[in-house]
Amino acid sequence: MDNKLNSAEERQPAPTLANSWSTKQDAVSSKNDRTKAVGFVLVHAGAGYHSESKAKEYKHVCKRACQRAVDRLKAGALAVEAVAAALVELESLTQSCPSQDSPFTNAGMGSNLNLKGEIECDASIMDGKSLHYGAVGAISGIKNPVLVANRLLSEAQKGKLSAGRIPPCFLVGRGAHDWAVSHGIPPCPSDKMATKFSLSAYKRNKHKMELAEKMDSGFKQTKRRRQSSENEEVSGCLDTVGAIVVDQEGNVAAAVSSGGLAMKHSGRVGQAAHYGCGCWAENACNVNPYSTAVSTSGCGEHLIRTMLARECSSAMQADDAHQALLEAMQNKFIRAESPTQTGHSP
Amino acid sequence: MDNKLNSAEERQPAPTLANSWSTKQDAVSSKNDRTKAVGFVLVHAGAGYHSESKAKEYKHVCKRACQRAVDRLKAGALAVEAVAAALVELESLTQSCPSQDSPFTNAGMGSNLNLKGEIECDASIMDGKSLHYGAVGAISGIKNPVLVANRLLSEAQKGKLSAGRIPPCFLVGRGAHDWAVSHGIPPCPSDKMATKFSLSAYKRNKHKMELAEKMDSGFKQTKRRRQSSENEEVSGCLDTVGAIVVDQEGNVAAAVSSGGLAMKHSGRVGQAAHYGCGCWAENACNVNPYSTAVSTSGCGEHLIRTMLARECSSAMQADDAHQALLEAMQNKFIRAESPTQTGHSP
Repeated sequence: MDNKLNSAEERQPAPTLANSWSTKQDAVSSKNDRTKAVGFVLVHAGAGYHSESKAKEYKHVCKRACQRAVDRLKAGALAVEAVAAALVELESLTQSCPSQDSPFTNAGMGSNLNLKGEIECDASIMDGKSLHYGAVGAISGIKNPVLVANRLLSEAQKGKLSAGRIPPCFLVGRGAHDWAVSHGIPPCPSDKMATKFSLSAYKRNKHKMELAEKMDSGFKQTKRRRQSSENEEVSGCLDTVGAIVVDQEGNVAAAVSSGGLAMKHSGRVGQAAHYGCGCWAENACNVNPYSTAVSTSGCGEHLIRTMLARECSSAMQADDAHQALLEAMQNKFIRAESPTQTGHSP
Repeated sequence: MDNKLNSAEERQPAPTLANSWSTKQDAVSSKNDRTKAVGFVLVHAGAGYHSESKAKEYKHVCKRACQRAVDRLKAGALAVEAVAAALVELESLTQSCPSQDSPFTNAGMGSNLNLKGEIECDASIMDGKSLHYGAVGAISGIKNPVLVANRLLSEAQKGKLSAGRIPPCFLVGRGAHDWAVSHGIPPCPSDKMATKFSLSAYKRNKHKMELAEKMDSGFKQTKRRRQSSENEEVSGCLDTVGAIVVDQEGNVAAAVSSGGLAMKHSGRVGQAAHYGCGCWAENACNVNPYSTAVSTSGCGEHLIRTMLARECSSAMQADDAHQALLEAMQNKFIRAESPTQTGHSP
């Protein structure tokens, strides 16, 4: 899943950790008794196949996102704040690129364009301490969708709204955009969300689709659709981003952000906005011996069917976590592509 | 959860059933060897508190929805088609009411209005045989949202779209509306979606909100929000609807449809559109001894946090299903309202 990932572990004189993380922390401390970890950060820039020639740039990108989260942890931030900071950096990469021709991630600005040539993003964030969750789906005109998800999470933690209304944890489309703006998150004109790179990918993909649809016309009478060859398939060269963080107190948090599949239908929501599918974070408690945090990347529809983030989190609690994870990935995730097989496990 | 439910079991000379349902079916057949069940249908018109005086009307409504599904089963339809037919009836009740002053359900036409005075609906459907799933969230201007969810499900079963694109399983907002119309589902003007009843409830709720917000103004400096008394709270007297069906072959299917919370923010998506939360259906297989189908109703945000539909389905597979269900409801669902308690289980 995470073929481009990076992690950072920073140490400084610091107070005690919660029990849920103490074992890991003790091991670290034994190497250097004078230092104490301020936390742990791991980021990814998505599943998929990428040019080796860009490996250096991806590593740089991931490192910078880690650094943002570490800076927040050093300042005493909780895991959920730090993970949001890492995501903002991953979403905003095109902004700090010297040239807009080379965006690196499929999140926020420079995301894959949908069928109508628009950018619609999904993002979610989960706090392992409170188990609160915030998500946005198919949101347009916002540079950093994860900030909206994070704001939904923090607003929900304040309790009920006026007249006893329950605060939302998941907003989509225009409503999500309007809520974000009314909560102080600045809008971004749609034409500034796309980059030269994402626009040219859109043109290429549109051309491929037109060709494929001409070839498909003979199949319209059949129930099944024609299977395109690999060369004929639309491609989104850019990937979902995500991160997990453990803070000084041992709290975990996870987040994910995605522009979704290239040439998706307008309004399509993928796993990055789905509870239990895009990310999961859960502090250790009397039911679960371990704190877990997960952030996924891959084909949204399959990840949704598997609820992969939550499934991996559960597997980590098993006595044989390695075997349970293998089971989750092989029997649940991989088989999700063909769920009509016998022995399905959705 | 289902305080207004109804079920129907119809018998006629018929062929064999799949193993997954044979035990139940054998028990039924033993009463009358000449008859054979064409299936099983159970519908609900939502959780919540309702006037006893309307009990007769609710029963009538549920019975009619059951009848629609039974008619489809008698005609040889699969569970997923029958469950969609039941839902259409539950969503469309206001249409067949002699007076639009008495709608009975919060789904499709006559749903609760949101903050902007608009109707935005959520619906989902799941086929236990293929494990395919279709959902729409915050969709406007469509009389029967479940038909869009069902169409998403059936389109996904046809395989990839042109140029290798993966068909969506979850669409929201304007994109969902446009997709529905382009697939032959007729649009309905927004002003025809509301009823006199839902409009007058909106006015009452708006007035309550204005009063509550005046009283809240003194609390703006504090982090926590003021807790409204019960009398001050907005009320949506209408409820989510849902159904489960078992067909002649023993396949199961489940569906749910909702207009969501009254005075919700535009773009808010509740459990009815969330995978694993609003409904769940899973045929028996070599991993699960029992076929299960679940349709939930209640406060969306809590149902999402619990993934209640899927959780109940898993509990039913346990050796002591009764205890496991009790555990799911008490320790997982009820505690979801206050997840920061120790011993959480999201």
